[in-house]
Amino acid sequence: MEYYSSQISKLIEELSKLPGIGAKTAGRLAFHIVNMPKEQVGALASAITQAKEKVRYCRECYTLTDSELCPICASEKRNHSIIMVVENTRDLAAYEKIGKYQGVYHVLHGAISPMLGIGPNDIKLKELMERLKGDVEEVIIATNSSLEGETTAMYISKLIKPAGIKVSRIASGVPVGGDLEYIDEVTLLRALEGRTEI
Amino acid sequence: MEYYSSQISKLIEELSKLPGIGAKTAGRLAFHIVNMPKEQVGALASAITQAKEKVRYCRECYTLTDSELCPICASEKRNHSIIMVVENTRDLAAYEKIGKYQGVYHVLHGAISPMLGIGPNDIKLKELMERLKGDVEEVIIATNSSLEGETTAMYISKLIKPAGIKVSRIASGVPVGGDLEYIDEVTLLRALEGRTEI
Repeated sequence: MEYYSSQISKLIEELSKLPGIGAKTAGRLAFHIVNMPKEQVGALASAITQAKEKVRYCRECYTLTDSELCPICASEKRNHSIIMVVENTRDLAAYEKIGKYQGVYHVLHGAISPMLGIGPNDIKLKELMERLKGDVEEVIIATNSSLEGETTAMYISKLIKPAGIKVSRIASGVPVGGDLEYIDEVTLLRALEGRTEI
Repeated sequence: MEYYSSQISKLIEELSKLPGIGAKTAGRLAFHIVNMPKEQVGALASAITQAKEKVRYCRECYTLTDSELCPICASEKRNHSIIMVVENTRDLAAYEKIGKYQGVYHVLHGAISPMLGIGPNDIKLKELMERLKGDVEEVIIATNSSLEGETTAMYISKLIKPAGIKVSRIASGVPVGGDLEYIDEVTLLRALEGRTEI
């Protein structure tokens, strides 16, 4: 693209590599960045490098954190005998936002996917099994209700059950506010199977 | 957001400041960045700072470029006596992509907008008038066909005409492939007014 400055083309190229950012959006962002105040550009660039440099896995739950132990694992207020297994840190954050869960987490960083060649050894599963040697009452499996998430849930449950630890799976069904008419068949079936008496 | 690493929160905050990037997208991008290879993170951060540091205005047309004179203004193949006035570098790029325009450009970096308090002195208009002292045959006004773009076009045309230079405005009408049914009334009227014999 000779008609852009080569620096801008370079920036557009790098931005386009990000997920969900196409060439048009990257162009819009690049021009916005060039027109931003110098301090804000510096802050953005340093936030990017700092996040990459400083962020690491929590020693216990493998969530992304700045310190050796994440605030949740370090907290004495949390119930360390209940572990919720999630696929990634964003899923952890989704549950934390509600503020109702009192246990701790375990972040797998992925889900088993034979299609993508991701096996049990490619996610933090060994690390989970290691934690279960401690004093654990219940493992709540909160992987996504996708094919990969379900496969992972099934796999983990089969792995843990022999150890005599209670294993549960978060409920699957119609989302609150969801219109039955627009909900897929599998979800409708799950909602029916998982019905509870009122 | 205590449940995220503070570095990630900081990155999400900075990313959210970009146009069209909400909190959710910023979160998705931030986690993607943390998981990117170190070299790619470095390339992104340096592209951002480099673009801000190195990019400057072309001495002639005020487009964003790396050198004192942009490749278009520096080219001997272009007709320097025809100047197309555009609002920003992206608009210039849009015309350059077609590869049919042989003249040069003038980038205003904005449009007159009394609503936003942007007056003729806030855009590169003085600089355009300065260029017209040279050997210029025609000025093609290609500002957007928004209220601001039209106001700017009108203003520039009144300013230039006394100098005896030909001033034209790009055509406004139904976009190619556009369905009349879904096109706004003003555009339909413009298309009618601007009809040409076939």
